[in-house]
Amino acid sequence: METTNVKAYGTVAADAALKQMNIERRNITAKDIEIEILYCGVCHSDLHTARNDWENTIYPAVPGHEIVGKVTKVGNEVTKLKVGDFAAVGCLVDSCKTCDNCKQDLEQYCSNGWVGTYNGEDKHLGGMTFGGYSEKIVVDEAYVLKVPANLDLAATAPLLCAGITTWSPLRHWKVGKGSKVAVVGLGGLGHMAIKLAKGLGAEVTLFSRSANKEKDAFELGADAVIISTDENQMSAASGKFDLIIDTVPYVHDVNPYVGTLNTNGTLVLVGYLGGLEPILNTVPMIMGRKSVAGSLIGGIAETQEMLDFCGEHNIVSEIEIIKIQDINEAYERMLKSDVRYRFVIDMASLKS
Amino acid sequence: METTNVKAYGTVAADAALKQMNIERRNITAKDIEIEILYCGVCHSDLHTARNDWENTIYPAVPGHEIVGKVTKVGNEVTKLKVGDFAAVGCLVDSCKTCDNCKQDLEQYCSNGWVGTYNGEDKHLGGMTFGGYSEKIVVDEAYVLKVPANLDLAATAPLLCAGITTWSPLRHWKVGKGSKVAVVGLGGLGHMAIKLAKGLGAEVTLFSRSANKEKDAFELGADAVIISTDENQMSAASGKFDLIIDTVPYVHDVNPYVGTLNTNGTLVLVGYLGGLEPILNTVPMIMGRKSVAGSLIGGIAETQEMLDFCGEHNIVSEIEIIKIQDINEAYERMLKSDVRYRFVIDMASLKS
Ligand SMILES: [Zn+2]
Ligand SMILES: [Zn+2]
Ligand SMILES: [Zn+2]
Ligand SMILES: [Zn+2]
Repeated sequence: METTNVKAYGTVAADAALKQMNIERRNITAKDIEIEILYCGVCHSDLHTARNDWENTIYPAVPGHEIVGKVTKVGNEVTKLKVGDFAAVGCLVDSCKTCDNCKQDLEQYCSNGWVGTYNGEDKHLGGMTFGGYSEKIVVDEAYVLKVPANLDLAATAPLLCAGITTWSPLRHWKVGKGSKVAVVGLGGLGHMAIKLAKGLGAEVTLFSRSANKEKDAFELGADAVIISTDENQMSAASGKFDLIIDTVPYVHDVNPYVGTLNTNGTLVLVGYLGGLEPILNTVPMIMGRKSVAGSLIGGIAETQEMLDFCGEHNIVSEIEIIKIQDINEAYERMLKSDVRYRFVIDMASLKS
Repeated sequence: METTNVKAYGTVAADAALKQMNIERRNITAKDIEIEILYCGVCHSDLHTARNDWENTIYPAVPGHEIVGKVTKVGNEVTKLKVGDFAAVGCLVDSCKTCDNCKQDLEQYCSNGWVGTYNGEDKHLGGMTFGGYSEKIVVDEAYVLKVPANLDLAATAPLLCAGITTWSPLRHWKVGKGSKVAVVGLGGLGHMAIKLAKGLGAEVTLFSRSANKEKDAFELGADAVIISTDENQMSAASGKFDLIIDTVPYVHDVNPYVGTLNTNGTLVLVGYLGGLEPILNTVPMIMGRKSVAGSLIGGIAETQEMLDFCGEHNIVSEIEIIKIQDINEAYERMLKSDVRYRFVIDMASLKS
């Protein structure tokens, strides 16, 4: 298969800094779209993969799965986009297309395993896929999204992971006008959860461990903030919420939040992968038919739906634009939660 | 308030045996129905209450919330039933009727607390309510059920708790033709879950720790039995079920069952009140949008729906009929799971 050599930014080992490197992209096949990457959001998964935190990274690794850019080439069977259009790519670039989940537009739960935008098994070239910290990417049109024309391109990038990860549970659990939604954690995911839930007409509350996020939460559209360390505030919220989107990425006690769910309510975890400690108490779950669930990004059709919704409601991420050369420093700042609310790389910097 | 003295069987202390005693029943008010109790099922909750296992029993305690009998008196505003009709009473005999949940026929989740058929706060007489181990009971018609004429009366009694407890999640999670349902545990609840899920058209599998329940499960209508201690059988069932009804009443590891849920599947706990140990792993939940939930009995309308469904499909419980004088021995046998599948007291024995 013919390939083209492109500039990228990646890492060769868990303890190495990211630096400029060259990678191969396949030349387009009939159904492929080649995209010149203009902006790429910086997700916590990028950092975890670069540093092999999940012990599954194959090096070299080029992160980045919040990709927006401009179409530069299309295969002769491509119908979705044409050269010059804006395009986006999220967390997945391939799936089996044949399993029950793929057929139901749930590629993120593909029974045969979907291919991640980076550190996934590249079915075309062998080896692993390389992500958006690069000049160009080539993706099957089935996994490419259209970008609404009115949205700021850089601020659209984080919608491709942080946006869809919170949108999918909002839609699956049928949030709309009259819904009472709470969000746990105010980072990249949490701030998008507030904006999207608000856009859907819900009454939105932020759970925060400290009062210093209150002002930001209200500016993002939250109707209320509950300080989760304040027992009075927590008991006043007992039985209130229809859906809680828990974006906290580390182990934490979900039992107090379960207590604030209304009958039939669901707490959905989108950030934390691991064991629930302290142990989950079933009593309030049984006494109120409450659920604890998990949710992973979203399917392609649902991602397009989210982008279109954001276009109609003029919703984008809050971002800090950085140069690719600042990525290592940005990772350090992310580890300290020192970002409001998402770093986005201006990929023009890779050319310089 | 005028009362009538009736014979009952109850206990005066956690470590005392049940014995015959006399209790007061209120004389009917305008909306009340007086029922001569013909049969009363024996639920594990009866035993827990009699022995103060939940540390909330007020003595004397008269258990029994799987009640069927014949209407002997009706208040002058009663429209649901008339003297001579068969009637049933389940786990609750009152609720606030005004909260959002009561208004939605979810009396079992009444925000102001529903009144249990026994050991609940009796709003009419003060003190605690007395259950079905007695000659008669007087209940607001709103909490009285009609009994389909074709069903065996004694075998109908367990539908009022074991039946509705498994019916409610089957309906809430929309089980029907094509659904794949699994049941964990084959006791009073589990055997009803198999019959009801099968009645709804689902493909039904029993999870059992040992092979010796296999024959019974198939006789009850199960399509398959998975020995949960057999790793090969468990991994063969990976990703299979839409709904798992977990009836096990003691602490146990639910993680292996979560692995057998399909995308969007739910494991609903109806038997175990307490902390989930070993700790619940969120990874498979997130990777397949799976839920762990709880569910409590059912509302009155839903209980009537279940009874009507059982009438149409000729579904009743498997029972062993006992005399009230054998109740203490029956409790001991229940503790050893030595019952197929529900004891039902022939209340005629209380007259002797
Ligand atoms: Zn991401
Ligand atoms: Zn697939
Ligand atoms: Zn019961
Ligand atoms: Zn109520």
